[in-house]
Amino acid sequence: MLAGMDVFESSLGNRDWQVVIERALRGEISEPIVNVDRQDTREFDAIFVGGGAGGRFGSAFLRARGGRQLTVDRWPFLGGTCPHQACVPHHLFSEAARELDLGRWLSGTLWFPDFDDKRASILQMAELFRAGRNTAHSFMNWQSKQQLGMEYILNTPATVIDEHTVEVAGERFRGRSIILGTGASTEVPHIPGIELPGVYDFVSLVEELDYEPNRCVIIGGSKVAIEYGSFFQAAGCPTTIVSRSPLMRTASLHHVDEDLRRYVVDGMCRRGMTICEGASPLEVIGNGRAAGVRTRLADGTVETLAADFVFIGTGERANSAPFVQALGVDVDGQGSIVVDRRMRTSAPSVYAIGDLIGPPMEMFKARKCGMTAARNVMGEPYEFDFSEYPDFLHSTYEITWVGLTEAEARERFGDVIVIQMPPAGVEPDEIPLPCAEGSMLYAFTRPELTGFQKCVIDAATRRVVGAHHVGFGAKDAFQYLDYLLRRPGGLTVDEMAEMNELFLNPEHFIQLCRLRAGRSELVDL
Amino acid sequence: MLAGMDVFESSLGNRDWQVVIERALRGEISEPIVNVDRQDTREFDAIFVGGGAGGRFGSAFLRARGGRQLTVDRWPFLGGTCPHQACVPHHLFSEAARELDLGRWLSGTLWFPDFDDKRASILQMAELFRAGRNTAHSFMNWQSKQQLGMEYILNTPATVIDEHTVEVAGERFRGRSIILGTGASTEVPHIPGIELPGVYDFVSLVEELDYEPNRCVIIGGSKVAIEYGSFFQAAGCPTTIVSRSPLMRTASLHHVDEDLRRYVVDGMCRRGMTICEGASPLEVIGNGRAAGVRTRLADGTVETLAADFVFIGTGERANSAPFVQALGVDVDGQGSIVVDRRMRTSAPSVYAIGDLIGPPMEMFKARKCGMTAARNVMGEPYEFDFSEYPDFLHSTYEITWVGLTEAEARERFGDVIVIQMPPAGVEPDEIPLPCAEGSMLYAFTRPELTGFQKCVIDAATRRVVGAHHVGFGAKDAFQYLDYLLRRPGGLTVDEMAEMNELFLNPEHFIQLCRLRAGRSELVDL
Repeated sequence: MLAGMDVFESSLGNRDWQVVIERALRGEISEPIVNVDRQDTREFDAIFVGGGAGGRFGSAFLRARGGRQLTVDRWPFLGGTCPHQACVPHHLFSEAARELDLGRWLSGTLWFPDFDDKRASILQMAELFRAGRNTAHSFMNWQSKQQLGMEYILNTPATVIDEHTVEVAGERFRGRSIILGTGASTEVPHIPGIELPGVYDFVSLVEELDYEPNRCVIIGGSKVAIEYGSFFQAAGCPTTIVSRSPLMRTASLHHVDEDLRRYVVDGMCRRGMTICEGASPLEVIGNGRAAGVRTRLADGTVETLAADFVFIGTGERANSAPFVQALGVDVDGQGSIVVDRRMRTSAPSVYAIGDLIGPPMEMFKARKCGMTAARNVMGEPYEFDFSEYPDFLHSTYEITWVGLTEAEARERFGDVIVIQMPPAGVEPDEIPLPCAEGSMLYAFTRPELTGFQKCVIDAATRRVVGAHHVGFGAKDAFQYLDYLLRRPGGLTVDEMAEMNELFLNPEHFIQLCRLRAGRSELVDL
Repeated sequence: MLAGMDVFESSLGNRDWQVVIERALRGEISEPIVNVDRQDTREFDAIFVGGGAGGRFGSAFLRARGGRQLTVDRWPFLGGTCPHQACVPHHLFSEAARELDLGRWLSGTLWFPDFDDKRASILQMAELFRAGRNTAHSFMNWQSKQQLGMEYILNTPATVIDEHTVEVAGERFRGRSIILGTGASTEVPHIPGIELPGVYDFVSLVEELDYEPNRCVIIGGSKVAIEYGSFFQAAGCPTTIVSRSPLMRTASLHHVDEDLRRYVVDGMCRRGMTICEGASPLEVIGNGRAAGVRTRLADGTVETLAADFVFIGTGERANSAPFVQALGVDVDGQGSIVVDRRMRTSAPSVYAIGDLIGPPMEMFKARKCGMTAARNVMGEPYEFDFSEYPDFLHSTYEITWVGLTEAEARERFGDVIVIQMPPAGVEPDEIPLPCAEGSMLYAFTRPELTGFQKCVIDAATRRVVGAHHVGFGAKDAFQYLDYLLRRPGGLTVDEMAEMNELFLNPEHFIQLCRLRAGRSELVDL
């Protein structure tokens, strides 16, 4: 039996957990943190290798179904990369970007002081995040133990021995199945100089940044590039994005409407970002420290873009190598573990979930993969198809979309109705719409900044087939719009017109649809 | 035929309309603005008296159904009180309150300067609104004419002559029906001194305020009291609310969960507001100008609350008097016009819609009343029941709810499951959840400020029967939650668990439900 800090009998509260995690992250607790019911003689139905989003939600679901699981993670907390290095800091930085952006536009007006670039610090935000992230971690440990009844071992890695066996700190645990969920890592592009100090990705940014960047070049055009780049720029660090594809036209983003894309990219440029599309980074230059990126631009010329801060935004790659080695599981050309819709790998009784099986590397997918694997382990044949889903990203705005773009809908249905704001032919600075919470101050000072929205309707069936929004406060709604659009029969403009809007609603779909729904033959609005 | 500024043949753009409306509001255009198709010989199917939310949406729907309408409004624009004096300034002020609140909590940290009360000005915000409101007005006029094909006469009142006849600037127009929608006005309480300068309501605030308030007493505990009071306080004007009922426990607000209420009211107190519940205002004192409110407090003592700014937040009353006089339409004890579910009044072929028929005085109701009347006028027997609906208000937060409170659900179903954040027994300052866009900076500086949420589930049917949220960014989703909860069969925790969340989602309902949905017997979370 492995030696470790046994917490099974204790009822640690959130504050207790904070102390434990803090000490473990500082290296003061190096032993495993063990929450295992040694009295329970049942076999484990599943051993989750990795306690991130997928592992934790899978574990919870399996427990809820009456099964027994063990979850193992190298970190001293459950929840994985998201609250430690990924979605949570991204959201913190994007909120900072939004607030800084507002402060810039309203500089010296109303109660806003003259905007002082020097007050905004990327380093300080990274430190703020690092100092506070453990409160979420401690909650995951607390909730998983006290509310969800999970067994887990933290602060030590798991080694997969065979299809039923995992070794943790020298002790072997056996399960009916193994569920792999160890995520993905930044795919570092192979260019000279990429290993220089001063080159960061979203992980090392929050873990290691120790100076204030003054000029940034981002290599890559992923979501991370747009999101972190918008934050760097808003924080007063002039930022250039070097991207092979046009922004938001990368393979990993589907259903990006062109009008939406243009509003977003124009907005980034309007805020001073430089976007080099069709460009290739050739080399990170610098004498012992990154000083710029030699780049081949779209017109073929080669230029060195100066930077004291280079940020990699090229996407991520599954951490599949150890499992290929141990189990011989099949992987695809990108190194993602291949699974069927039940999350089964090519190795019997071995499942894989989350980022480890490839894109979309999104939270809903990770969590629902975990749930899917758990259901199948517990004898329920259950499939999860994530080929269609709602999506979002941040610039200084919240950008959300679901379903088809206008162009895709025209391709598929021919006769398509578009309801958008501002309407076609009306310049954004002519009207302060759409607006709602988050864009009211813009509406009365810079109406062109309030946002953009579009609803795409199949004229024949009157079904809403796509919804697209740039602004604030609409993201949450798209979860339900996704459900409504994809249920059998979908959502018609007439059903939309019957809903009860909460005015001013951040997206104005309901009332705009109502203005048209009375017509037997729909027309654009 | 009435004399006026005939715009029927012109295609005024948004900027043209801005000029026209501006001049009309300044009194430089006193004649009616006439957009009537004098070549159309058809009878009007309906004449809308009042072109606010209900009148405009009713008009659009009637046109869409192939009918002919005429809409008349005393103001030089369509859209009514909302964009001119009510919901739009309220949203602008609430966004200011949110930003000011953030600036206070983060004063002197990160990029936030030391918060300077004196920079924040209620007067300046009122002026900002006044200066900018016409851009929305002009859009309504443009859209109604160019996109919706409505006929209208603006900048002059309509006088109802009989059930089919309306007189406008001396010309009589006849319609198959008349649809009344002239809204409501602040119900001024009958207390001595209420007419003194320095006493405002939400209308006179934006129309007439000409000094910077230093200390405010609000008479009444309505939504308006909470919303405007939170703004005044955030803008550095110490504010006291004098309310007979506990806040959010007034008759006009239903389904207010007690835990949600406590989070909101505690949050207002924490920000320095004084809330006198169970108190009665006796007199506005002052020598030619309001200087305070003599108040009987809950304990029976009488105290004078000093104020240079008294704000009436007691609710509104329907503007029904002219129609009682002209048509003898029935009104209820509050003076609201009595209608059936088809919006028919007691007078044949006369309908009434919106605030004129009483609470809830909300946008969705006004607009859908207009649509309902239009459908019935066009021969479609259509009923609108607004006894249940989602609701919201602002403090410095966005507060949204739908369905039953926990207490109501326990009363009705007995066995009720609650999923809430923070969970029962966990102090708000122990964890930074719930959080998402709008509360990330709080999550990392003041976790107790991030918000509160609760999902109420009937254990037997597993249906979600109530959802409650304090925070940011969730309001939009509640429109769709309302639809889902009220559709036949409702929305079960299992269906919720299948949805695709957009993480970090402002309300965490989907993932929290998923953590429990695996259980055959649900338990709290």
